[in-house]
Amino acid sequence: MAGQSETAPRNRQWLLARRPVGMVSESDFELAEQPVPGIGPGEVLGRVRYVSFEPAMRGWMDDRESYVAPVELGAPMRAPGLAEVVASNDPAYAVGDLVFGMLSWSEYVTGHWSSEVAGRGYRQVPGDVPVEMLLGPLGSTGMTAYVGMLDIGRPQPGQTVVVSGAAGATGSVAAQIARIKGCRVVGIAGGAEKCRWLLDEARLDEVIDYKNSDVRSRLREACPDGVDVYFENVGGTTLEAVLDNLAIGARIALCGLISGYNDAQASPGPRNLFQLIVRRASIRGLLLWDFLDRVPEAGADLRRWVEAGEIAYRVDMQEGFENIPRTFLRLFSGANEGKQLLRL
Amino acid sequence: MAGQSETAPRNRQWLLARRPVGMVSESDFELAEQPVPGIGPGEVLGRVRYVSFEPAMRGWMDDRESYVAPVELGAPMRAPGLAEVVASNDPAYAVGDLVFGMLSWSEYVTGHWSSEVAGRGYRQVPGDVPVEMLLGPLGSTGMTAYVGMLDIGRPQPGQTVVVSGAAGATGSVAAQIARIKGCRVVGIAGGAEKCRWLLDEARLDEVIDYKNSDVRSRLREACPDGVDVYFENVGGTTLEAVLDNLAIGARIALCGLISGYNDAQASPGPRNLFQLIVRRASIRGLLLWDFLDRVPEAGADLRRWVEAGEIAYRVDMQEGFENIPRTFLRLFSGANEGKQLLRL
Repeated sequence: MAGQSETAPRNRQWLLARRPVGMVSESDFELAEQPVPGIGPGEVLGRVRYVSFEPAMRGWMDDRESYVAPVELGAPMRAPGLAEVVASNDPAYAVGDLVFGMLSWSEYVTGHWSSEVAGRGYRQVPGDVPVEMLLGPLGSTGMTAYVGMLDIGRPQPGQTVVVSGAAGATGSVAAQIARIKGCRVVGIAGGAEKCRWLLDEARLDEVIDYKNSDVRSRLREACPDGVDVYFENVGGTTLEAVLDNLAIGARIALCGLISGYNDAQASPGPRNLFQLIVRRASIRGLLLWDFLDRVPEAGADLRRWVEAGEIAYRVDMQEGFENIPRTFLRLFSGANEGKQLLRL
Repeated sequence: MAGQSETAPRNRQWLLARRPVGMVSESDFELAEQPVPGIGPGEVLGRVRYVSFEPAMRGWMDDRESYVAPVELGAPMRAPGLAEVVASNDPAYAVGDLVFGMLSWSEYVTGHWSSEVAGRGYRQVPGDVPVEMLLGPLGSTGMTAYVGMLDIGRPQPGQTVVVSGAAGATGSVAAQIARIKGCRVVGIAGGAEKCRWLLDEARLDEVIDYKNSDVRSRLREACPDGVDVYFENVGGTTLEAVLDNLAIGARIALCGLISGYNDAQASPGPRNLFQLIVRRASIRGLLLWDFLDRVPEAGADLRRWVEAGEIAYRVDMQEGFENIPRTFLRLFSGANEGKQLLRL
């Protein structure tokens, strides 16, 4: 391969070694090494440059029905990321192209990128956008925040919007879009440092530090007229507290339920779903897939807002292939500050 | 008063004596008797002819925030019903008029009917409709079924619709509207007799007897392509079972959660709300109040369907003022067969 050393390069991969019971751990993955595969007709070989981490990947490790098939035991862990084309039998991809798509925790990946998901998942990256921005607020988390807040939340100027996981990759963008749309925005996040960032950099109106305060009573103080829009990343007692503080006609965009992703036994849901009737509120489950027609507009708006400084973002960039599993675990301890990425 | 006996008539009332802890019982009410009140300017005096019972009334007995204020301790229990005007200082209501509105468990009621809720709640009853039809499928339960199924559920021909509490006043109308709209309809109800009625009279496609079968596995059999629309009256494990069987894009109209209304401690919610994300489904709380502009069309459609035999209905008519509290309890044991009414 052009640009590689003359000795046959090796491909290291992190395989799913076992299905986690409860909290995911590094020992659920296993390092493997094999030659870099050759490519057949129509295939592309990419060298992975960045991997991106999302809480939802925890669900892909479980053997149960979900919106994607589970990762198979012994297979490399599936992950979105950015690869550089190093060999190609597909005229749509040239050596040197940077491509974003669903890759894996591998140093090299191959695939029929033009035909998989009709090529939709594998697209060349524009050369004029920094990787941190591209995989951060302009990536799938930012797009998800955009459609979840605008198409499901439908915030009106002056309304009260609450976002949980507000310092995370998706939540921080969702919260700032609501601010841009003229809403009063309250973020829920864990720890003084994240809360400070939300106030000073993301310029939210109020923050609730769930690690150091009572979310239910703080919500009541911070949202005296109730919550019109709730962008939910967390679930559990946070969801229950918000349900008790809804305004009439509230909309809840259900993006994630991270508080339960590592439960060995599924935890009970909120005891107060009746509040949906009292407040005539709605909850709608959110996946970006249902809003692909909105992606061009979302990308243009997000880029404009980020470049104008209207949307602040942080990337937590870790380094080194060997650190991939422990970087993934940062999402569940809340150690990550902003979008979790890793550079190979 | 015209038409009354010469001795001053007495007004018996069932007062809310205490707030129930857990299951409501007859001892939560107390019989009181006093003279029939006189009426001031603009007031109307009605003699209660029928009272109507709804599970939601259980919530009005609790001292907590809801969509209506709680019934005060010592006050007559609030209830929808039908009264005959026996005296009137309001030109909008003439002696002899039959009026439907929010009354109470009383033999006589008074009020400024034209001004309360802008007169909306107190309307003359058309003379050509039987009371059983008027307080049943054409009443607020039928209207709620109509807007919940059509405006929230939005069933498409050929889709699979599930209704819990399917033999009840609201559920039975919701289920039959879905059948009229060309859907495959599965009803969940308790006991062989109700299930037989749903199959033979309401002509649903399938029924699940929750008292004698496993709802989760029966749902999977009865809905192999998943549930597109769920009209929810029950909650608890029934909701959890349906969430595990949703089709992509499912809509849930949340009309009631009767399984929890008599809990002394609120029960946990479904453990699988994540299925809303997997299935990109929505839940929306339903109150008829939000759809008042739909009432004329709903009334016309429902009347046409009932008169054409397209909607079957049953009224469980009890008798006698003294039996009001124990008739209310029938809703929670599931003893009622169809819309629960009582004739005074």
